[in-house]
Amino acid sequence: MAQRHLDPTTPLTGPAPTGDALAGYLRAQATEFLRALRLHRETGPGAGASDGSADAARALRRSARRISASLHTFQSLLDTDWCEGMRPELAWVSGTLAMEHAYTSRLERLLNALHRLSGSTALPGQTAAAAAPTKASAPAHQTSAPERGNLTVGAAKAGALLDRQLNLARTRAHSTALQALGSSRFHAIADKVAVLASEVPLTKTAVTTDLRPLATSAEGRLTDAVAALPLVTAGNPYNASALVHGLSPDTVPHPQDAPWHQVRLLLRLHRYAREALRGETDGNAVVDLRLLSAGQALNRHRDASEAAAAAAQAARTPRIAPATAYALGVLHADQRHEVEAARFAFQQCWQKETVSTS
Amino acid sequence: MAQRHLDPTTPLTGPAPTGDALAGYLRAQATEFLRALRLHRETGPGAGASDGSADAARALRRSARRISASLHTFQSLLDTDWCEGMRPELAWVSGTLAMEHAYTSRLERLLNALHRLSGSTALPGQTAAAAAPTKASAPAHQTSAPERGNLTVGAAKAGALLDRQLNLARTRAHSTALQALGSSRFHAIADKVAVLASEVPLTKTAVTTDLRPLATSAEGRLTDAVAALPLVTAGNPYNASALVHGLSPDTVPHPQDAPWHQVRLLLRLHRYAREALRGETDGNAVVDLRLLSAGQALNRHRDASEAAAAAAQAARTPRIAPATAYALGVLHADQRHEVEAARFAFQQCWQKETVSTS
Repeated sequence: MAQRHLDPTTPLTGPAPTGDALAGYLRAQATEFLRALRLHRETGPGAGASDGSADAARALRRSARRISASLHTFQSLLDTDWCEGMRPELAWVSGTLAMEHAYTSRLERLLNALHRLSGSTALPGQTAAAAAPTKASAPAHQTSAPERGNLTVGAAKAGALLDRQLNLARTRAHSTALQALGSSRFHAIADKVAVLASEVPLTKTAVTTDLRPLATSAEGRLTDAVAALPLVTAGNPYNASALVHGLSPDTVPHPQDAPWHQVRLLLRLHRYAREALRGETDGNAVVDLRLLSAGQALNRHRDASEAAAAAAQAARTPRIAPATAYALGVLHADQRHEVEAARFAFQQCWQKETVSTS
Repeated sequence: MAQRHLDPTTPLTGPAPTGDALAGYLRAQATEFLRALRLHRETGPGAGASDGSADAARALRRSARRISASLHTFQSLLDTDWCEGMRPELAWVSGTLAMEHAYTSRLERLLNALHRLSGSTALPGQTAAAAAPTKASAPAHQTSAPERGNLTVGAAKAGALLDRQLNLARTRAHSTALQALGSSRFHAIADKVAVLASEVPLTKTAVTTDLRPLATSAEGRLTDAVAALPLVTAGNPYNASALVHGLSPDTVPHPQDAPWHQVRLLLRLHRYAREALRGETDGNAVVDLRLLSAGQALNRHRDASEAAAAAAQAARTPRIAPATAYALGVLHADQRHEVEAARFAFQQCWQKETVSTS
């Protein structure tokens, strides 16, 4: 165990990992994909957001991402035509299946934020009653400071608007996912994955080729992308950079977020390449806490970025009340600060990593 | 000089400072008050926001604050009736004179923030033209994404609204200050200050009483108030506490800011007590950089808190457009994060101070 932590890119024992290890990893992920698919069909996709169905969809995405990532990182060891045919299809599967979950968690994030911003003592909808005179005869809608209550009414209305818009999007994403899983396109992919579970299309030389240089290249792409991030700024708390251009017309999606999203993807490729090298599957994965927390910071960055965009988008709904728009503005800025906080958290993780390996 | 820095509460040489030193300090501040008043009358109060007039008003407030603070900290060395009659009058002078400057700087802070939030490439009012096709014949108001431009239009409208509201408040504050300076109430105060410039109403024992225990008490009140602040939270960047209750109905003024405002006042009392101890006036003041930066952080906290409240207040203007309200919501949240940033900055200063004196 100690050796694993000291030099995590080297496997525990034995010779250098080659195409054989890659084949083993791909077979395991393909098997996991098929198991998840079977589970998804058993739990009944029509059941919608049932826990079993959601878990199965998550497992499907999980293995699809790993197969796709391995095809990317270790492409030179695999049949080129097969790789090029397979990767966009796997991306389509994981992308399509991810949408429902994304809308669900985005709505949850935004409603939690609205709740926090409205304060625990005055929940949306309770304000008028709370502000009313304590006399039992006083109607609940009569308040001594009605103009003050507006903003909380705004928070409640903003919540209702987001709930409507994101639930609609979630329902559509659910239907789209169901259609995708029943399509001939998906069946063709499932068939290919079933073949992969027993037969990996390695090139002739792959069996004796060392995987490590390819994994190192993946790590190099990550390191380069991180080096290009504005980490000095990010490590300076309250730099106020995430909300810059927050009211400019081209902020959805926010261009400054793109390099961070890219690092998130490269970090994932690096993590999966490490798994393939060590032949890790769910059961025996060695968790690198620093990579894990860096990845979590980037997930939070992505989630907050998209939540901020959803709040800005909702504010463009025609004929909303000013109080609703105001609450959405506060919410947008709050999530953009979450974006900034996530960058700070990533910078802190990454710096630790650099320090401890130097 | 080195000794001053090592133990700043002890004067350089000679015996302990007594009521004599206090009398000297009060005479100097009273003289400064009269000089500023003369300057203010010479530059012509009717000239409004002229530089000379503003400088004179600032100098008047500056000396009024110092006299008032000394009356508070060293009250036991001064005639009680005189103190009790003088302090509210000095508070009225500095409070009344402060308003015009406060509205001016609040508006400047909010417009700067809107400018930053709108991005440097798309200033409010320029968006439609910038987004329009480059063909010279295309009307400037035709844009390929009009709904996107709304938010920037919102920023421009929010700026215009704040400009209108805060300029009106500033103009009123200016008239109020002019009326105050011409009032019999003010003339009575000026007469008392003129007497103070030559004759300080010390108690009989004051001349031999050590000032230091009273200054130490002032410092103790500051230390106690700082100890009650949530500094652990403040030192944890992106704690998101300043925007909690940001949409609750009772946020203007924000109750959580009050202890910080109180520390700001106590820090000032501590600073002025140190000046009195050392007989410092403008010419020979020893600047303690840590106290100075802690004070600046608390000024920034106060300014951002009041700017955030002004944005929230403007959002309650009847019949504003949703885009305007949205921009004001973003602006409010931005300033609340400035509040949080200022608390972090204060915590950093204060921690340094504690570490370096331990």
